[in-house]
Amino acid sequence: MFIIADNIQPMNPSISRSIKLFDAKPIENIVKKCEEKGVAAIDINPGSFARKGVEVISFLIETVQRITNIRLCIDSNRADVLEHALKLCRRKPIINGFSLEPYKLHNILPLAVEHDTDVIGFLLSPDGNVPSDSNERMEYALKLFDEAQKAGLNPERLIIDPILVPITWEDGTFQAREVLTTLSVLPDLLGFKVRTVVGLSNLTSGCPYPEKKAFLEKIFLAMLSQAGLNMVLMNIMRNDSIRTVRVCNAILGQHVFSWAEV
Amino acid sequence: MFIIADNIQPMNPSISRSIKLFDAKPIENIVKKCEEKGVAAIDINPGSFARKGVEVISFLIETVQRITNIRLCIDSNRADVLEHALKLCRRKPIINGFSLEPYKLHNILPLAVEHDTDVIGFLLSPDGNVPSDSNERMEYALKLFDEAQKAGLNPERLIIDPILVPITWEDGTFQAREVLTTLSVLPDLLGFKVRTVVGLSNLTSGCPYPEKKAFLEKIFLAMLSQAGLNMVLMNIMRNDSIRTVRVCNAILGQHVFSWAEV
Repeated sequence: MFIIADNIQPMNPSISRSIKLFDAKPIENIVKKCEEKGVAAIDINPGSFARKGVEVISFLIETVQRITNIRLCIDSNRADVLEHALKLCRRKPIINGFSLEPYKLHNILPLAVEHDTDVIGFLLSPDGNVPSDSNERMEYALKLFDEAQKAGLNPERLIIDPILVPITWEDGTFQAREVLTTLSVLPDLLGFKVRTVVGLSNLTSGCPYPEKKAFLEKIFLAMLSQAGLNMVLMNIMRNDSIRTVRVCNAILGQHVFSWAEV
Repeated sequence: MFIIADNIQPMNPSISRSIKLFDAKPIENIVKKCEEKGVAAIDINPGSFARKGVEVISFLIETVQRITNIRLCIDSNRADVLEHALKLCRRKPIINGFSLEPYKLHNILPLAVEHDTDVIGFLLSPDGNVPSDSNERMEYALKLFDEAQKAGLNPERLIIDPILVPITWEDGTFQAREVLTTLSVLPDLLGFKVRTVVGLSNLTSGCPYPEKKAFLEKIFLAMLSQAGLNMVLMNIMRNDSIRTVRVCNAILGQHVFSWAEV
């Protein structure tokens, strides 16, 4: 699994303040951690700063790129913000992302085609709702793949996100299992080794017990890895989750094992 | 996943002493822990006390059965010891186990058929060697299944152990991955949902770092669960591994989730 850091987003209080004051320091600190932990990409989520979206994304991208060459993942549901970001990124970013929602299909997917970039496709309904089970996820995956092909996207560019929800939802454990099932089945369903990503922090969102949160996160992460997950969007401050990625990668063959890695 | 406790075995120093002195206390303490942790079965391994095998197994079974109704798993490579144990067990035990090794095929497998008990089949070569990869494991699984059917065993009685080796072996991470692959593929290979078991303690055997040992064990256990493992033979004193089983079972649908379970 490759790690995409999810720390640069306004739900993170230090980043929220940093965005308001255009203060680069907290962002630089996160970027340094990303370098230390060997992440593959850094997600940049400017949040919903309405009219200031373009200004905020410029500040974030420029701040990050000043100190690292790590690839960026631009996290916005606004085509104008993404289009602006695409011009600023030194390396081709990942666009995060589109879905069957008409606005995203017609305004965001074409950006990925035009710039030939990787793009995350969410398995959400055309109304933006979370699917009820793995069957519905697979139905959306087929439609998303079809739409991507019609739009002219290179299939290798698609990264599917099966949508993980909080475990505390009434059907939270069921949904977690359905995500695992979807990940296992997608390559056979689409007929090629489509890449996948999961937003891991969603699983434990709202959990009031930090130790239990960290425990559940690492165990589920190991299950995701075994189900074939390629990329994980995660909080890189959770050391045990980073260790889990290292251990899973060692076992599944991307790294050589040594006790120093555990 | 169901838990089978592996603590009653002579590699455990308190049990080794207990067996030598016929002292029931240390065994009773483990059985009480097994009750607390909700294990499905207790493995009873008398070790290789040569001529005293029957005497030792009687002492162990009687001691355990005096205070619990938990099912037993009789762990011996001697048919005389197993045969004696089968007479003493109040509930039908699991026989642990047979393989393609001629002695076991001709002396242990028939005991399982005669008594219609669950029996663990190890994916070892006819010489008792560990297979080199998942292909060899699958070859042995087909042969083992064939031998079991020829001997008249009900296929539902077979529990396959794909043989986990220490991660520190030269090919340890490769072997761990091959075990995961074997578990995923076995139901399709044999055409039914054959049950499986893994001896988890083997993975970290010889590791000098207790915290790393516990970390690796729980992460790999979550991967095994996702690969479809049904039963895990494990050290029940490893609290994090017990928690891992609870979390995996909640997600894979055998238990209802609550933060109290994590």
